[in-house]
Amino acid sequence: MTETPKAQPVTPRVRVKRLPDRGSYDRETIESILDEAFICHVGFNSGHGPIVIPTGFGRDGNDLIIHGSAASRMLRDLSNGIDVCVTVTILDGLVLARSAFHHSFNYRSVIIYGKAELITDRDEKMRALEILSEHIIRGRWADVRPPSEKELKGTTVLRLPIDEASAKIRVGPPKDDEEDYSLPVWAGVVPLQTTLGTPIADERNLDGIELRDYFAR
Amino acid sequence: MTETPKAQPVTPRVRVKRLPDRGSYDRETIESILDEAFICHVGFNSGHGPIVIPTGFGRDGNDLIIHGSAASRMLRDLSNGIDVCVTVTILDGLVLARSAFHHSFNYRSVIIYGKAELITDRDEKMRALEILSEHIIRGRWADVRPPSEKELKGTTVLRLPIDEASAKIRVGPPKDDEEDYSLPVWAGVVPLQTTLGTPIADERNLDGIELRDYFAR
Repeated sequence: MTETPKAQPVTPRVRVKRLPDRGSYDRETIESILDEAFICHVGFNSGHGPIVIPTGFGRDGNDLIIHGSAASRMLRDLSNGIDVCVTVTILDGLVLARSAFHHSFNYRSVIIYGKAELITDRDEKMRALEILSEHIIRGRWADVRPPSEKELKGTTVLRLPIDEASAKIRVGPPKDDEEDYSLPVWAGVVPLQTTLGTPIADERNLDGIELRDYFAR
Repeated sequence: MTETPKAQPVTPRVRVKRLPDRGSYDRETIESILDEAFICHVGFNSGHGPIVIPTGFGRDGNDLIIHGSAASRMLRDLSNGIDVCVTVTILDGLVLARSAFHHSFNYRSVIIYGKAELITDRDEKMRALEILSEHIIRGRWADVRPPSEKELKGTTVLRLPIDEASAKIRVGPPKDDEEDYSLPVWAGVVPLQTTLGTPIADERNLDGIELRDYFAR
């Protein structure tokens, strides 16, 4: 874990070219998006061309953490230090304009470029897995059986330094052409939220076991 | 738009290698996942290495449709017929096991490989834009100002034939190691849903204009 800068360096590939006013290189913004999302999409070149895989992740200061089975093709490819692009997207709303053309989404996304590194040290690996787990459900790690040495060995954990990254964000109402504002069409934003449904207890839970309120935050 | 097969051919790159029992090549399954999602993640090789961009999409029979500004770097790159990978992911739940190791997500994802083609015919382009719009909000297209000839010209629309694709799905309860079932830990699934919030009307809407119930389905 290295120190985090206040703002990202704006390298050619992170610079938001299309609609640049939606771009952000502010570190706090980038981290807040990463910390809210459950999954990322990992892009890299396999032997068969580009490939994009969804997966869970965590953040350890300046490092994005991903993991998977040691048997996973993706983890094996990535641990060889090839170029990777990780994208995290949160969809916040449908933007309904008066013209088809100006329809849009409200969203917050982060793109990180770099090369992943294998975490080999046993204790660092255990800590990274705890971070991954806590990213998804804070407080859960302390309640469950921790990984055995065999499970640890069977798990590949990678860190991707968040050194080259940018955010892209759209917020607010639709922006219509001036002459379209007189059209008798409802315009505005329909917010989208990810919500938790009613928990489904496993049939083999012990009697009297309740789900702790991990999600109160 | 070409005819759709009942099952996808299982080429080497679409074959689900990791946890193959989660893989599906059934056409109906693939289409149902595509038709439910709002966005996809598009992966390709830019001059700076792999890049993954989130974007809206639609489906026209056997073709995935994406679009963007003619000024967009991604659309320009893709319309040159380079290899692309499009991934669509729906997160259905958090899977809480009794061990850290067996925690998982319930999800449905589709990966499509291929080369995108530019839609150049004016009427085909208009139809593709209608399909894109209707994919996100069914019924909206008829209510809004259609694209002008200038807007049409400024929009690049691509089709990606769904010829090489697979789905990967996890459903159901956690699968713990037999000896862990005696642990006093709540296990089960916490469903995740994308829900619509209260619509936020644009300040400049005309008096008495109501939002139509596009989302009743």
